Amino acid sequence: MKLRVVKNILEANDRIALSNRERFKKAGVFVVNIMSAPGAGKTSLLEKTISRLNGRLRAGVIEGDIVGTEDAERLEKLGIPVVQINTQGACHLDANMIGEVLDDLPLNDLEILFIENVGNLVCPAEFNVGEDIKVMLLSITEGDDKPSKYPLMFKESSALILNKIDLAPYLDVNIERIKQDSLRINPQLKIFEVSCKKEKGIDDWVSWLLHVRDTVLKLS
Amino acid sequence: MKLRVVKNILEANDRIALSNRERFKKAGVFVVNIMSAPGAGKTSLLEKTISRLNGRLRAGVIEGDIVGTEDAERLEKLGIPVVQINTQGACHLDANMIGEVLDDLPLNDLEILFIENVGNLVCPAEFNVGEDIKVMLLSITEGDDKPSKYPLMFKESSALILNKIDLAPYLDVNIERIKQDSLRINPQLKIFEVSCKKEKGIDDWVSWLLHVRDTVLKLS
Repeated sequence: MKLRVVKNILEANDRIALSNRERFKKAGVFVVNIMSAPGAGKTSLLEKTISRLNGRLRAGVIEGDIVGTEDAERLEKLGIPVVQINTQGACHLDANMIGEVLDDLPLNDLEILFIENVGNLVCPAEFNVGEDIKVMLLSITEGDDKPSKYPLMFKESSALILNKIDLAPYLDVNIERIKQDSLRINPQLKIFEVSCKKEKGIDDWVSWLLHVRDTVLKLS
Repeated sequence: MKLRVVKNILEANDRIALSNRERFKKAGVFVVNIMSAPGAGKTSLLEKTISRLNGRLRAGVIEGDIVGTEDAERLEKLGIPVVQINTQGACHLDANMIGEVLDDLPLNDLEILFIENVGNLVCPAEFNVGEDIKVMLLSITEGDDKPSKYPLMFKESSALILNKIDLAPYLDVNIERIKQDSLRINPQLKIFEVSCKKEKGIDDWVSWLLHVRDTVLKLS
């Protein structure tokens, strides 16, 4: 019975995701769904990324959290439109939640929309929301066993950002193992080593993001 | 509709949790449900804890993961009975999963049973499995905003273990803020600062655990 419930929700979700996608396409906005475990640095990455896009692309954010507005407040300081979703217990964003808030954003004025998912390595990867790409963050403090234990998110993502790389000297973590195991699950995965705190590796990631956006928009 | 589905599952879950609880009581085993985000150090804490209990209490483990047996293999090296549950996508353990594997454990020979939940700060806190206490780990690398963003797990837990405390000098994390916000959500919460890697704070946690077990078993 449990399986049947999940299937129904996912089927409904995919229908709504498709309708979100049509709206994004029509508005010409490129949509990036950012996923990670709690505290891996999604908001910090968005702060650094959006600062670098400033003057090049008009960005907006949909911020997902169980409760609270802390991250949305951080991102609003960048002077961009931000919508906060509180899922009130749900451990992921779904297509319906995204669809419901799209009217709160100046979609036609945006060129890139970031969706910061709820901090969770599991369910966010199961729910398409109509995005162009999924991007996953992994803090290297979480250990090198995550690809084998949470494979779906690695499989669904176009890019993997290994964050907090500045802490490597203080950890027993095998970064090569993370990379190899991730690529075994998803050979197309683009991997970046980043420290948001020390501002390392962010330019490479932003260049890649701009390149992928151009490619996707040309194809559509 | 989504709310209704969740409610039905939780109601069914609570019924089964109650029946698990009766079995635990009858066997005289104290049950600890360990929860955290991915990579916070649940398995490492269990390794250190169970080593210290060796010769004092007969311990067993139910290990929950989406896929894989890596953590169960680590814990089997301690010479204790370990059962691995693979949830195949579900982001938490529920009472039914626990009930189904209880016959695989020598329950009457055990004095303490640890249930290592799936790495996730959200849903595990919503599903009772029949445990005596819930214990939460938070790696300080996850940041000091977690109590306000994931309040339910802090509220449901009897103890909070702040792990990887050895990394504090390299992080911008306000440990006092974590403690104060956690205690605001749950004034009864017992908080431990621990480094599994550096073997710090583990004796205090184990003493508390033994004390709580004695108290609970006397009361029942």
